[in-house]
Amino acid sequence: MALYVHKYGGTSMGSVERIKNVARRVAKWHRAGHQVIVVPSAMSGETNRLIGLAKEIQKDPDPRELDMLASTGEQASVALLSMALLEQGVAARSYTGWQVPVRTDSSYTKARIQSIDDARVRADLDAGKVVVITGFQGMDEDNNITTLGRGGSDTSAVAVAAAMGAVECLIYTDVDGVYTTDPRVVPEARRMNVISFEEMLEMASLGSKVLQIRSVEFAGRYRMPTRVLSSLTDPDIPLDAESRSGTLITFEEDEKMETAAVSGIAFSRDEAKLTLVAVPDRPGIAHSILGPIAAANIDVDVIVQNQSIDGHTDFSFTVNRNEYGRAVEVLNKQVLPAVGAREVVTDDKVCKVSIVGIGMRSHVGIASLMFETLAQEGINIQMISTSEIKTSVIIADKYMELAVRALHKAFGLDQVGTSST
Amino acid sequence: MALYVHKYGGTSMGSVERIKNVARRVAKWHRAGHQVIVVPSAMSGETNRLIGLAKEIQKDPDPRELDMLASTGEQASVALLSMALLEQGVAARSYTGWQVPVRTDSSYTKARIQSIDDARVRADLDAGKVVVITGFQGMDEDNNITTLGRGGSDTSAVAVAAAMGAVECLIYTDVDGVYTTDPRVVPEARRMNVISFEEMLEMASLGSKVLQIRSVEFAGRYRMPTRVLSSLTDPDIPLDAESRSGTLITFEEDEKMETAAVSGIAFSRDEAKLTLVAVPDRPGIAHSILGPIAAANIDVDVIVQNQSIDGHTDFSFTVNRNEYGRAVEVLNKQVLPAVGAREVVTDDKVCKVSIVGIGMRSHVGIASLMFETLAQEGINIQMISTSEIKTSVIIADKYMELAVRALHKAFGLDQVGTSST
Repeated sequence: MALYVHKYGGTSMGSVERIKNVARRVAKWHRAGHQVIVVPSAMSGETNRLIGLAKEIQKDPDPRELDMLASTGEQASVALLSMALLEQGVAARSYTGWQVPVRTDSSYTKARIQSIDDARVRADLDAGKVVVITGFQGMDEDNNITTLGRGGSDTSAVAVAAAMGAVECLIYTDVDGVYTTDPRVVPEARRMNVISFEEMLEMASLGSKVLQIRSVEFAGRYRMPTRVLSSLTDPDIPLDAESRSGTLITFEEDEKMETAAVSGIAFSRDEAKLTLVAVPDRPGIAHSILGPIAAANIDVDVIVQNQSIDGHTDFSFTVNRNEYGRAVEVLNKQVLPAVGAREVVTDDKVCKVSIVGIGMRSHVGIASLMFETLAQEGINIQMISTSEIKTSVIIADKYMELAVRALHKAFGLDQVGTSST
Repeated sequence: MALYVHKYGGTSMGSVERIKNVARRVAKWHRAGHQVIVVPSAMSGETNRLIGLAKEIQKDPDPRELDMLASTGEQASVALLSMALLEQGVAARSYTGWQVPVRTDSSYTKARIQSIDDARVRADLDAGKVVVITGFQGMDEDNNITTLGRGGSDTSAVAVAAAMGAVECLIYTDVDGVYTTDPRVVPEARRMNVISFEEMLEMASLGSKVLQIRSVEFAGRYRMPTRVLSSLTDPDIPLDAESRSGTLITFEEDEKMETAAVSGIAFSRDEAKLTLVAVPDRPGIAHSILGPIAAANIDVDVIVQNQSIDGHTDFSFTVNRNEYGRAVEVLNKQVLPAVGAREVVTDDKVCKVSIVGIGMRSHVGIASLMFETLAQEGINIQMISTSEIKTSVIIADKYMELAVRALHKAFGLDQVGTSST
């Protein structure tokens, strides 16, 4: 007997029939003697429906009220899934985030989990119940409802798994694992049986939509083995096969993982680039520029500061395209007058393409091969950012698919038997 | 400046446009310098949609999970209405029942309010905010979400008004007040400007759908002046006119009210009659029969026990037609073997028609006129139940409309200037 956390996405919860299938799948694990906590998302379309209503009423919906509204989607899901489990003869009980409680900070629409109380859930598990907990949401210290932002149910699931000491967190979704890149862009993309936590972290942060970045961070912080697998298989397939399917995010680096220099290609079109031209180069200049951006709660991604020439430098950074308008406003109204740069140059038609692999640590010339490959395709690199296990480039977004396909081929990811087992 | 509680029904909240109209109406009161707490229902159709989903998943949905599910409808409403108020420039803030908190017992799907904490709401009101609170729901002592049952938002509104010391609770609905009887049955029915609390209590308990019975009980317990008025008028009509419209439930009996013997005719088709035939008549027999019914959480309405003949009596009572099946089962399985009656005779094709009026206290012959009127129409009376200010009869439900129309005429309610001011 072991404790597992299952997370089911909106598509898996998208209809009465699918909810019944989720219940059958969970019941199978429960019957096998395991303890199960389930974290379902809102029924697909529901969150968008609610946000659509909000936007019809208020152009820029109040964040606190938006969380109050959006959190209802997951609340309905946990109740319906508990009913489906009860109908299958499985003792089940639902809880909202505030009932557990899942405590978060007060950053409405993108709150961060601070703590999870395990007492009530533990008591139910020990009494033989399946516990169904709302994903995506929590409660701040003033008992306001908060949400974790899009994809937050993944984070909830991993955080609950960690808090409860689960042996594995299973993220059931409409894809059957993590691929070397998005198969919609590169049909030759292959599923990985295992991926290291660090690679997954980079893949997630670089635009792979399979898992939300914060859920991977949580998995890493608590070393929680997390498996991405399909909810579209027959719910009655043997538990043994299901428990080995998908892609396992692991914390054990084995030899196989070292054989490939690059494990995957990630990309994101949601990028916008902002450059302050001819900034007087003095200590603290980066803080003067990015401080007001951070204060406006805008996440900065890639940052590049060039070599200073004649006491001036160009300072570039990228933000999510959704926050482009606000970032431009902050730069022009607050930063430009304060730091005395010549001008602000912006471009929201860029994308980010990244190669990721823990093998990059021990292989040389990986970044060079990337730049060479892009050059051969005639793609101009606008910004470069590197870490120990990834190299990202910012390029014009019209080249995105071309770049991903070329890199996938150049790094041998099309071939069977490299990074995949 | 005074504190008012506004309650808006599902129809008033039925669309984005209607929610905006509610916000305009509330904003008008707020601009006039009043403090306002708003208790909106779920958007019309939403509660039924949710319960429909539940019934697709579980034949007899688990009550706790059903409350978890159904309460989301009101939660979405308070968020949307707060946004609409904010969009109008009115400071507003929403709270769920558990955030206030509104404490209830643990009778899922028909919980009763036990206490309401006023601290948080009061602080917001004093800071100039409109406070929007979910109707219909609360939290039990184990922090489970409970709902008050259908129409529970009326009860929430009156309870909040009482707890907060409001000067008046305004129930905005799709009718413009309380009528002498249902205008769909009797076109000559007239709106009353005022109705006494006791009459309203009888009207509500006897089937008038304008206000939920428990909301009237709360109004009575706390002597909370409660006004039923239309939400379909132009939201920008002068506040002065609006505040005098509809029907006020009052605790001051004035002369006008005494002039009419009967103020209104109430009726209900949701009745079913059960009779235990030839019950041995001994002390405690009523308890032996109704105890198991109460234990099954079935509300009993009219009860009649006939004169004992040869040590045996017939014992009849009515229940809501929804609970007919369960009541029959309890009688046959538990009561019949225990009390040793001859048989159970049941009829779910009955209805209840009642005349109500505090004038009945001082007028004689009112019940006689009722029986005479029904006899003239050839309607057989199956059961009779009386109180100080009402007389109810159980008759075959096919005669319901005929009986109501005949009584409305017989008691002069068709004429202008009797019970209405």
